[in-house]
Amino acid sequence: MPRKESPTAAPRRRGRPRASGKTDTRRRILDAAREQFATYGYAATTIRAIAAAAGVDPALVHHFYGAKADLFTASMQLPEDFVRSVSHLLLDTSQSAVGERLTRFFLNLWENSDTRRQLRMTVSSGLTDGQATTALREFVTAEILNPVVVASDRQDAALRLPLAVSHLIGLAMGRYILEIEPLAHADVDTLVAWVAPTIEHYLTGESPTR
Amino acid sequence: MPRKESPTAAPRRRGRPRASGKTDTRRRILDAAREQFATYGYAATTIRAIAAAAGVDPALVHHFYGAKADLFTASMQLPEDFVRSVSHLLLDTSQSAVGERLTRFFLNLWENSDTRRQLRMTVSSGLTDGQATTALREFVTAEILNPVVVASDRQDAALRLPLAVSHLIGLAMGRYILEIEPLAHADVDTLVAWVAPTIEHYLTGESPTR
Repeated sequence: MPRKESPTAAPRRRGRPRASGKTDTRRRILDAAREQFATYGYAATTIRAIAAAAGVDPALVHHFYGAKADLFTASMQLPEDFVRSVSHLLLDTSQSAVGERLTRFFLNLWENSDTRRQLRMTVSSGLTDGQATTALREFVTAEILNPVVVASDRQDAALRLPLAVSHLIGLAMGRYILEIEPLAHADVDTLVAWVAPTIEHYLTGESPTR
Repeated sequence: MPRKESPTAAPRRRGRPRASGKTDTRRRILDAAREQFATYGYAATTIRAIAAAAGVDPALVHHFYGAKADLFTASMQLPEDFVRSVSHLLLDTSQSAVGERLTRFFLNLWENSDTRRQLRMTVSSGLTDGQATTALREFVTAEILNPVVVASDRQDAALRLPLAVSHLIGLAMGRYILEIEPLAHADVDTLVAWVAPTIEHYLTGESPTR
């Protein structure tokens, strides 16, 4: 139950110290989470260790941020429902147009200027800082790739998803970071029209014959 | 005529000072080039300015490194014939399998451990350092994208190439930098079989209907 108001939590207007105390605790937990993930990676970090580093009870960490995956996305300031949204899109290949829905979801994340700033930072640190790279890889693998691969009945599922994800990451690099023209100023619909069929193919199409 | 021996250059065995002086001059030119590209970007930097910063005659810069594009790739320790190889591959869409040849060329660059180290650095700085991003974008646009677009008779050529390039960059991120499995350990032929048809489609296929 992330971010739900505790029944005993005082409304902010009751007084500055109490409200600020709660805000401080949340921030202390987030800082501890960033520190732990950066130092030990995603897989080896536990809610318990984060709570200890923040000097709070593990139950409070759960109360504020939910599961470890949610705490990780919160520590990267990504949308709260990021993992569930992506997983839902990737798992729901029964419907057609999964390529279009995934491509559009991904581009829309970057079109939002708040999310874009954070995604740029995540991508930059994930590509340049060895520890951040490890944490990002472990997170993506454990929370997004593996569950989808396990749920899929395709033998080559394990390669399909990284191909699709890599293509989308590259698109974001070219459009939002390197800002190569005319990619940087093409409208989203045009990009979706070009890229979605590729993503659809990687996720659900025929395997290549060699 | 890059890297050709000058007729008056003393063979290395004749004596250390002369040989080392030549090596020093080459290195001084490269250092000056890196500095100028990083400060002013690719477009605004001239061979003349690099020569002045290195304290040598512009003719000597040409003699050692050839054209500005070659000096830029040398300053990034990329293969000497990088621009010509890529341009040749991209322009030669008359033959089929341009997607396969381009994908294989790109992957083989990264498979070489020396080039990979340099490409990682180039990509990292190009994505995190604003000045390096500008220089890299200007270089790719002026020396690779624009000439191919100009040479193409396709109306939507300007978007096709960045789509292909972005996809390949994303593939390199996923395989060589984030090292997402099983992408990181898939063999090159398997990757080419999956990705080459996409690159081929972006470069030469039908435009999407919207």
